[in-house]
Amino acid sequence: MQEYVRDLHRSGKIIGLVPTMGFLHDGHLSLVDIMRSRCDVLVMSIYVNPTQFGENEDLSRYPRDLKRDCSLAYDHGVDTIFHPDSGDLYPENYKTYVTVEDLSSKLCGASRPGHFRGVTTIVSKLFNIIRPDRAIFGQKDAQQALILQRMVRDLHFPVEILVGPITREDDGLAMSSRNTYLSGSERTQATALHRGLTRAKKMVESGETDSNIIIEEIRSVLQEQPDLRVDYAAVVNLENLEPLSRIEGPVLIAIAAFVGTTRLIDNIIIHADETNIIKIQDS
Amino acid sequence: MQEYVRDLHRSGKIIGLVPTMGFLHDGHLSLVDIMRSRCDVLVMSIYVNPTQFGENEDLSRYPRDLKRDCSLAYDHGVDTIFHPDSGDLYPENYKTYVTVEDLSSKLCGASRPGHFRGVTTIVSKLFNIIRPDRAIFGQKDAQQALILQRMVRDLHFPVEILVGPITREDDGLAMSSRNTYLSGSERTQATALHRGLTRAKKMVESGETDSNIIIEEIRSVLQEQPDLRVDYAAVVNLENLEPLSRIEGPVLIAIAAFVGTTRLIDNIIIHADETNIIKIQDS
Repeated sequence: MQEYVRDLHRSGKIIGLVPTMGFLHDGHLSLVDIMRSRCDVLVMSIYVNPTQFGENEDLSRYPRDLKRDCSLAYDHGVDTIFHPDSGDLYPENYKTYVTVEDLSSKLCGASRPGHFRGVTTIVSKLFNIIRPDRAIFGQKDAQQALILQRMVRDLHFPVEILVGPITREDDGLAMSSRNTYLSGSERTQATALHRGLTRAKKMVESGETDSNIIIEEIRSVLQEQPDLRVDYAAVVNLENLEPLSRIEGPVLIAIAAFVGTTRLIDNIIIHADETNIIKIQDS
Repeated sequence: MQEYVRDLHRSGKIIGLVPTMGFLHDGHLSLVDIMRSRCDVLVMSIYVNPTQFGENEDLSRYPRDLKRDCSLAYDHGVDTIFHPDSGDLYPENYKTYVTVEDLSSKLCGASRPGHFRGVTTIVSKLFNIIRPDRAIFGQKDAQQALILQRMVRDLHFPVEILVGPITREDDGLAMSSRNTYLSGSERTQATALHRGLTRAKKMVESGETDSNIIIEEIRSVLQEQPDLRVDYAAVVNLENLEPLSRIEGPVLIAIAAFVGTTRLIDNIIIHADETNIIKIQDS
């Protein structure tokens, strides 16, 4: 792979990367579609990265279907799939980690210690191997995208990070490979995450600026579901992820909740500029 | 710099890097000489990296002479000098660190907490900015070279790490920019580090394999000096830096000592192969 990309760089090609853990859905493919027109050679990595899973998390049962993934990826214009072995990416006695302090311990980082260290480490490896000119991540993992943008800035990776919008099912559920874990009833209850965010959006549009009132409303929507347990519902500054008591500046409203045993996340981004005109990104 | 190296890569040039903190001496220049024939474009970085200095260390008084450094470097065939501002390398609110666990907490890492995290972080930045095909470090900082080799392997940096031999003054003192801190008497006493290692080498050549006996002998040589305080004298496995009770395999004998208030280091590498034939590298 490193020889291949060296030759690509020598011939002046722009390399685009869509990093994934496979089991592709329309969310991944929307990122492929966005990147396709923004590079000469489009690489997708498919790798279920062990270091971003906690000890009691779903590494072993994370869904995999490489054959289907390859077929979908090539159909959408991917040029090259990078599907390494764990032993290649994590050689014996590996000891090196990349960490983004502070940002990595908030929100999902508080519930999943070590998760973002695993993400920043694997993405550093992928960047060093594939040397993309740009890479795209989904807004569903908004904290991940923010941390990676910070990592790229701080370590001077010559990579442009793009963030693609959330892709949703018809009933609003954010697409995720983990949705396949849900039973029929859980699948129905899971739509509450999007309903909570939609409610929050309407409140902000109606002029509500008190974060606590918005969070309470989201929680009440979520708690109507019998098998749903809120991990967090938060209104934070989009740049440093610090809690905001009032809606101002770039704001991330983020939810994590267990539906049954499946942990789902969703979010909405609101930009309030100096004139207090509020722009809402995604839903 | 990133645009410049991108164009170099596009034209198929091999980039060699000699990272330094400036105040060049013949040790640095020997690394330049080694690298000159091993690359098309030879880059030297000159940057006194704040994150590898502890709070009570010598960051502010570390010697600097950029004009002389540039002149020496260009005379020895360096093509490009990279001399960034701190603000460029460490943007406001930087939070990202690269760490090599275990190796970074041993030997010098025990005395200088955070030092190697600073080294691995700045070298990652330099690698991302300059994108060298190979980079060279001096054996005087043997632990640093080992940690960087591990970092490159673990994170898959497409960079070959070379290690150049120790350059010494006529009386054996390993060259270091910090030698300029020494008073006349301290300068004389500082030669004990090399004498201790030379004594160790002779003992090994005479068949001594007990590390404790060797360490005691080194300590007795060092302790003859009134203003010298031993930080550590250690016999360790060259790959994992674990203490060795017997001389076998690739062995690093390393010393750190304060001469007055100046901390100096020196080392010797011994390769004992399966037939117990011992090869000694450098002195």
